[in-house]
Amino acid sequence: MAEKEVPHIVISRLPIYLRALTLCIGEDREIISSQELGKMLGISPAQIRKDLSHFGEFGKQGTGYDVKYLREQLRRILKADREWEMALVGAGDLGRAIVLHYGRFKEQGFHIVAVFDKDPRKIGKRLDRFEILDSKLMSKIVKEKGIQIAIIAVPASEAQKVADTLVKAGVKGLLNYAPVTIHVPPGIRVQYIDPVVHLQRITYYL
Amino acid sequence: MAEKEVPHIVISRLPIYLRALTLCIGEDREIISSQELGKMLGISPAQIRKDLSHFGEFGKQGTGYDVKYLREQLRRILKADREWEMALVGAGDLGRAIVLHYGRFKEQGFHIVAVFDKDPRKIGKRLDRFEILDSKLMSKIVKEKGIQIAIIAVPASEAQKVADTLVKAGVKGLLNYAPVTIHVPPGIRVQYIDPVVHLQRITYYL
Repeated sequence: MAEKEVPHIVISRLPIYLRALTLCIGEDREIISSQELGKMLGISPAQIRKDLSHFGEFGKQGTGYDVKYLREQLRRILKADREWEMALVGAGDLGRAIVLHYGRFKEQGFHIVAVFDKDPRKIGKRLDRFEILDSKLMSKIVKEKGIQIAIIAVPASEAQKVADTLVKAGVKGLLNYAPVTIHVPPGIRVQYIDPVVHLQRITYYL
Repeated sequence: MAEKEVPHIVISRLPIYLRALTLCIGEDREIISSQELGKMLGISPAQIRKDLSHFGEFGKQGTGYDVKYLREQLRRILKADREWEMALVGAGDLGRAIVLHYGRFKEQGFHIVAVFDKDPRKIGKRLDRFEILDSKLMSKIVKEKGIQIAIIAVPASEAQKVADTLVKAGVKGLLNYAPVTIHVPPGIRVQYIDPVVHLQRITYYL
């Protein structure tokens, strides 16, 4: 399949295009040119056309893209048109922050279906609407439910061990909020969220 | 100054190196080779050496880096050895999530000193330890305090307007949690945090 060969950097931009198109639909916009999309995103129109050309023909020269159609195609390509079940590991302040900001995950088809923590004082209690489950059950439940995505929200010192357990249980993608780089076997995807890293990318220039 | 010419992509990796070195110090590690650091981070040792060489000589061939010394140098380069005052705009669920996860910001020298919202029902109330101030005061307070960094946690439809006001008031760097690309004049830095984008970068491969 041609899609397999698309560079990671191109894939990494597709969700940004999808997000912009979703905003266009909110504004009842039906057609958008690569120039206009480029201006919205600070990406060159040529780059956008080149990125999209990996996946076929989405617009005609001079007429622009049909917003709804392109959005649907990107949703299909990114598998954003499906519902995904996720495990959240870590029910501390960070886990609580993630759950609080959870509305947007859900809107986009990402559902937390199990929350784990190893602290006996937390197990059995609730984190917002979720019951906190014993981390010892993580492997079993991830396997039973066929969960493919997990959010790691444990301290840095725990993150690698948690990732190992999750991957062994069948998880294929990790969204890591722990401030540490984690190692996974080939074929497993890890994405990182660490606001401090982003803030330091700002302060260098100040 | 030579530092001005360092490519953004190199700068973007420095906070990752700094984070790794901080973890090494937590483990009482005194010396680390570019090989070991590379293994921790999944970055080639040659890349690490090349990145660091932009800023001088930090280690001798064959002996590795002095962890404490390199960490101090990176802190200095990234201006992570200072205290930074930040404004948080948006006291909704997202703002609340950010404040809840605020401990790590503070540890790293990033201090929220003012929280703004435009909702009259929120103004005057508290978001955790912070009093929620009227957005109308944003420009005045940012100027008075000389705030250079702001966190945007408002809905997508509001983000650009808020960014414009902040930049006009003198803010130089924005950490944007709103799910939208924002436009700023040259010289202003924007970093984005959108977990949905990261999750879609995972699901493509599933």
